[in-house]
Amino acid sequence: MSAPRYDVIGIGNAIVDVLARADDDFLVKHGMAKGSMSLIDEARAEAIYAAMGPATEISGGSAANTIAGVASFGGTAAFIGTVKNDILGRVFTHDIHAAGVNFTTPPFKKGPSTARSYILVTPDGERTMNTYLGAAQLLSAAQISKKEIEDAEVTYLEGYLWDPQNAKEAFLKAAKIAHQAKRTVALTLSDAFCVDRYRDEFHKLVKNGTVDLLFANESELKSLYQTAEFDTALAALCQDARFAVVTRSEKGALVVTKDRTEAVDAFPVAKVVDTTGAGDLFAAGFLYGFARGLPHVTSAKLGALAAAEVISHLGARPERKLAELAREKKLLP
Amino acid sequence: MSAPRYDVIGIGNAIVDVLARADDDFLVKHGMAKGSMSLIDEARAEAIYAAMGPATEISGGSAANTIAGVASFGGTAAFIGTVKNDILGRVFTHDIHAAGVNFTTPPFKKGPSTARSYILVTPDGERTMNTYLGAAQLLSAAQISKKEIEDAEVTYLEGYLWDPQNAKEAFLKAAKIAHQAKRTVALTLSDAFCVDRYRDEFHKLVKNGTVDLLFANESELKSLYQTAEFDTALAALCQDARFAVVTRSEKGALVVTKDRTEAVDAFPVAKVVDTTGAGDLFAAGFLYGFARGLPHVTSAKLGALAAAEVISHLGARPERKLAELAREKKLLP
Repeated sequence: MSAPRYDVIGIGNAIVDVLARADDDFLVKHGMAKGSMSLIDEARAEAIYAAMGPATEISGGSAANTIAGVASFGGTAAFIGTVKNDILGRVFTHDIHAAGVNFTTPPFKKGPSTARSYILVTPDGERTMNTYLGAAQLLSAAQISKKEIEDAEVTYLEGYLWDPQNAKEAFLKAAKIAHQAKRTVALTLSDAFCVDRYRDEFHKLVKNGTVDLLFANESELKSLYQTAEFDTALAALCQDARFAVVTRSEKGALVVTKDRTEAVDAFPVAKVVDTTGAGDLFAAGFLYGFARGLPHVTSAKLGALAAAEVISHLGARPERKLAELAREKKLLP
Repeated sequence: MSAPRYDVIGIGNAIVDVLARADDDFLVKHGMAKGSMSLIDEARAEAIYAAMGPATEISGGSAANTIAGVASFGGTAAFIGTVKNDILGRVFTHDIHAAGVNFTTPPFKKGPSTARSYILVTPDGERTMNTYLGAAQLLSAAQISKKEIEDAEVTYLEGYLWDPQNAKEAFLKAAKIAHQAKRTVALTLSDAFCVDRYRDEFHKLVKNGTVDLLFANESELKSLYQTAEFDTALAALCQDARFAVVTRSEKGALVVTKDRTEAVDAFPVAKVVDTTGAGDLFAAGFLYGFARGLPHVTSAKLGALAAAEVISHLGARPERKLAELAREKKLLP
């Protein structure tokens, strides 16, 4: 087997974020659960957009953010996801190309418009997402390139792929190709509500080895094991998963392997501006380190660094070159 | 004459900014004069966009930024400008409405797309703008509502209106209506290169009283009077203008009237992130204060405060509610 061409390939929903500040009352008034991601139809999208404040458009999408982060660390990276050939589709494509990511999924010429997530950022920096999937829900096995998956050290999948029709097939096809090529398959659980929708299936993916490396935050893990106790959920995870990373916001992160569980501190942040992308960028740092064969603790520190960068400004993509930042902090040579 | 319905109405190019970070080499390589605004055609727009880094889309446009700022101070405000009925046109319209501005100019259903400015922000925070005018250049006297102009204490015009065909007529029509209604006409010179293109005409507008209140920065003023010496330019301005505000970046600002010239300090800023909109927001604060009958020095302090807010983050519209900020700083009761 030749050396892989990509450190990481990501498969996920191709989304442009529409970010605005809002107070908690806005969330209550519009029936939004703080910190969640809700899927919305076009009519609700229009209603939310009309009600929300002045906004900023920045490319997003969970796996896409992660992949942009891997590239920012200097990793070789590719992304698979579907947009329409409209203005926001061109925005998404420009931004991911400009981040140095290989992205060649052809845009659709007709059908629903490019996906957008209307994200309300409250004064505490927490984000509440309302996603109109549009063209992203048309991702199917047809878009999965065997060659690209085989060429990647890690295939990274987002739990949100369980939402759109057909994307699940794309997910399973990619995982199969990756394993046949002896590559690593990684999954992020995406969101506690997403876990709630597909708990049994996600649980099975982890237990049966479809997923080699699992990313979860505290609330996703509690949702997966239906417990309010983090320690209970963690003990269950240690039974099920061979390899997992659990992020705990300001409490740092845990790297769980069969042998041991190692803890890494969060990176200090002067002011949390917008938590959008925190988990995505943690995954970026960890995956970059993992693909390059660094010790898990170093990889997790790279994750913590990237998460700290992204929550210190608006938007879910890094503003600073993460490779430089990691060198400044002596995490990379 | 009944009390005016608006504190300020602005007329200008309706533009969405596409902002990306770039180093100085990028500007040199692409033949851009740092700090300038260049008009570009669609082909050059495509080329610049393809070359520039990951971007953020935020509504912009000089006069539109000013008007959004006036509304943020709690002023009543309206805007006239032209977009197309496309995604960026809807973005512009949403954002200015969400800022609390009355904007009713009907979008075009066909013709060129909504204007965008590709803005490169260098590490020093300076911005270099490349503007594709698109639908904005179709602004004409037909869009000027007599009733709206009559209803506004101040009609605020941007020098950039001298660029598109027909917009000049819109400008002159609005100024005439405003003066017939005994209102104030204000102009910003926009940009030293813009002054260079229309020096004689701008000079005439100031001397013949078409413009009552002039906004200029140092380089625009030097360009207007074709001198490298600020003091020479200022002396010439004092001869010509009855009422002017000169902004000098970190050196603060001067309010020039027939009687006297008063200086106001710049507001301290922890870190200059992006200077886009600094002049626009200074004008916002000053115009709000002027329309509400505050002393000129107080109005200029409001301008300095708004400029400091906008240069401390990416984008040319205020992120904080300026009325609150002004109350915190004891500039408003």
